[in-house]
Amino acid sequence: MAKEKPSIPKGTRDFGPQEVAKRKYILNTIEKVFIKYGFMPIETPSMENLSTLTGKYGDEGDKLLFKVLNSGDYLKEITPEILTASNQQLTTKLISEKGLRYDLTVPFARYVVMNRNEIAFPFKRYQMQPVWRADRPQKGRYREFWQCDADVVGSDSLLNELDLIQIYAEVFKGLGVQVEIKINNRKILAGIAEVVKGAEHLQTIAVAIDKLDKIGEEGVSKELSALDFSDIEISSLFEIITTKGEDKEMLQSLKSKLQSSTEGLKGIEELEFVLNSLQQINKSVSLKIDFSLARGLSYYTGCIFEVAALEGTLKSSIGGGGRYDNLTGIFGLDGVSGVGISFGLDRIYDVLEELKLFPDDTQGSHTKVLFCYFDEASQAYALQGVTALRNVGIASQIYPDVVKKIGKQLDFANKLNIPFAAVAGTDEIAQQKFMLKDLNESKQELLSIEEMIERLKN
Amino acid sequence: MAKEKPSIPKGTRDFGPQEVAKRKYILNTIEKVFIKYGFMPIETPSMENLSTLTGKYGDEGDKLLFKVLNSGDYLKEITPEILTASNQQLTTKLISEKGLRYDLTVPFARYVVMNRNEIAFPFKRYQMQPVWRADRPQKGRYREFWQCDADVVGSDSLLNELDLIQIYAEVFKGLGVQVEIKINNRKILAGIAEVVKGAEHLQTIAVAIDKLDKIGEEGVSKELSALDFSDIEISSLFEIITTKGEDKEMLQSLKSKLQSSTEGLKGIEELEFVLNSLQQINKSVSLKIDFSLARGLSYYTGCIFEVAALEGTLKSSIGGGGRYDNLTGIFGLDGVSGVGISFGLDRIYDVLEELKLFPDDTQGSHTKVLFCYFDEASQAYALQGVTALRNVGIASQIYPDVVKKIGKQLDFANKLNIPFAAVAGTDEIAQQKFMLKDLNESKQELLSIEEMIERLKN
Repeated sequence: MAKEKPSIPKGTRDFGPQEVAKRKYILNTIEKVFIKYGFMPIETPSMENLSTLTGKYGDEGDKLLFKVLNSGDYLKEITPEILTASNQQLTTKLISEKGLRYDLTVPFARYVVMNRNEIAFPFKRYQMQPVWRADRPQKGRYREFWQCDADVVGSDSLLNELDLIQIYAEVFKGLGVQVEIKINNRKILAGIAEVVKGAEHLQTIAVAIDKLDKIGEEGVSKELSALDFSDIEISSLFEIITTKGEDKEMLQSLKSKLQSSTEGLKGIEELEFVLNSLQQINKSVSLKIDFSLARGLSYYTGCIFEVAALEGTLKSSIGGGGRYDNLTGIFGLDGVSGVGISFGLDRIYDVLEELKLFPDDTQGSHTKVLFCYFDEASQAYALQGVTALRNVGIASQIYPDVVKKIGKQLDFANKLNIPFAAVAGTDEIAQQKFMLKDLNESKQELLSIEEMIERLKN
Repeated sequence: MAKEKPSIPKGTRDFGPQEVAKRKYILNTIEKVFIKYGFMPIETPSMENLSTLTGKYGDEGDKLLFKVLNSGDYLKEITPEILTASNQQLTTKLISEKGLRYDLTVPFARYVVMNRNEIAFPFKRYQMQPVWRADRPQKGRYREFWQCDADVVGSDSLLNELDLIQIYAEVFKGLGVQVEIKINNRKILAGIAEVVKGAEHLQTIAVAIDKLDKIGEEGVSKELSALDFSDIEISSLFEIITTKGEDKEMLQSLKSKLQSSTEGLKGIEELEFVLNSLQQINKSVSLKIDFSLARGLSYYTGCIFEVAALEGTLKSSIGGGGRYDNLTGIFGLDGVSGVGISFGLDRIYDVLEELKLFPDDTQGSHTKVLFCYFDEASQAYALQGVTALRNVGIASQIYPDVVKKIGKQLDFANKLNIPFAAVAGTDEIAQQKFMLKDLNESKQELLSIEEMIERLKN
């Protein structure tokens, strides 16, 4: 076997013990809140049929799908003629039937359609799994990354929006991150489109103002100009979407502007219901109306959300979501309305890291005690000790190899952030005790196994 | 967009809420024991470079790797000439650089080599992730399945073997499954090869007797015959490997048979150390010497293990492992001895399912209470209730849509195995209470929110 210098594919990462501990801390925090709000987990396969994935994420998305080569004699249908035509699309279709999951939403829609007869609707599901995108890797953007989604399907009720907003608030409170949850409604955007230029321009407007953060008002204006929006249309659009002020004023002013749009008024009503209900049950949530919030995806039809951290330098979105009226329609099941949110594990990780918000117990090994000894005889004695501690549930280990130098063993404990070392030497064995060293405080005590257990349990 | 009837790739599975809960129960049980014994988690990417994976699992294994198509213009190097030669291997190399993880051992070896300067050795790591194999799908065999591995690298000590055996025992005790842990030693097999026919025949013998379970003594004999083993050699081999009896007798009898083999005697000594040490610290583990245990993989060099359930119809292996002296050598790092074990999540799942060993709380939603109501006014009241319960950490939900029929809402609770329903009607609101229905016992009580919390916390 050749001895190659190993590496991993670009855009992918190994996670060491500390990183796994920190990631789990985030996942557990999110999961606990999902469960508290009545959501149930599902998991879908990493590979989906390409027929399930293709055409769901736009042309750009299709290009970013990781495709898996068929097994066996996958070239059998590829003739030189097919190749000469350099028909890459056809070739791909013939040699690859499966792709890696691109997000959790489409697999969820597929799951709902396939299991519609077993599911009790409204179905509140959460899903926390990796997704893969063949994006150009760059800082903070990976080719394998995790999403944590919660969705409710089969219910039109705005109580679901209310639940999801509270989940956002509670998760980030649990993680100690100050966030702002922005809310808007696609029906309001539809109303705005209607009064500014015409209902059919909704998606154009949504895609354009979705870029406000990146390219600013000037950039968006230019883009709309190029798409045949007049200066008057553009300025009246910006006048509406940049409305600032108290919630009530903002909604009041919008109501008068959208009075000719039934859909726009419906959107305002939905927003008002959510805001008023939230006000009644939870005043601490920082929910902020933002009429310029658009979210690019075309399947949103009602409330839309986006969450950003208020502290630190990483101001980009760490979560988002919204209501979609017909996601399962792409798989032949119409009339199932849903609403969902997503947490971006990797971005949240970066925020917590920057703000130093990870708790201490994610910093090292969970082991509480390392048993150290000097020779075969004391090894057997130390083995009794580690067994006794494990029997009462205290995570502990014994240095496995006989190395006479106790310093090497203590170094090992320090490297792993193990807080205690129990040393077994001739003196200790004679007294049937262990020298328990507190490695953070440089203190030590001579204790029997029972005393040690008592000491460590406190 | 076309409306296709959705499906998932063969050999893959969706997991619904109950299945996820059950799988998590197994994973959590295993993980807790790993942590108690001082193991730390790592995670590696789903995709590895094919140069990392290829050649590590034999020719058969190479064929079972799922290969991922390069992104972008992946056909650019494929000329009709390459195709005409129908050189599939070359084509694959040119269009695919990455593959899906086939097991957790090779990625772990790669990880150790890449991170050797940061790792504190001995390194005790665990890893619980899915792996993918393009095997023919059949009952109990999937193309995506999970492995849970624990390995120690950078230590020769047999205390590691002792830890791993206890981990096996403790996990299955925790899961309530009676198991038998078989143990043997590759050095003993080497000694047997030496006295039966010659040291160079070790791997042939190991591969042949690894099939004993499947094809029986007769089948193995035939296979060895075909490989130029004489009848005398075969019968002397079987005489040794089928030795039965008490541990001490078995080892005593083997010692006399292998007295000419230094390596064989070393193997016996290692086995004796493990058995004696285990006897001193934990008499309850059912460890059984089996000289016919071989395990096919060529990289094992010391103790080897295999675990099987003692009850039910599923007698196949639900775990296995062993010591390897030079796994990282394939990536250029020599002299790192390791020992590891693996749990097969899917097989353990099947065993627990058959023996009905899953605990009750893996059977349904974690939600404790569903709030039910009749109209908009009682919805607002019920919303106060569900918020109060969630504020004290009780998982609860409110039926989101206004449906006048209470029966439909209670049906929903029953389908999800939610044990309580809190009903808010006009009477209840007038008294500022809720009717708490115990859905398992068909009892109900009129309670204030505080009383309800008190009641549910017990």
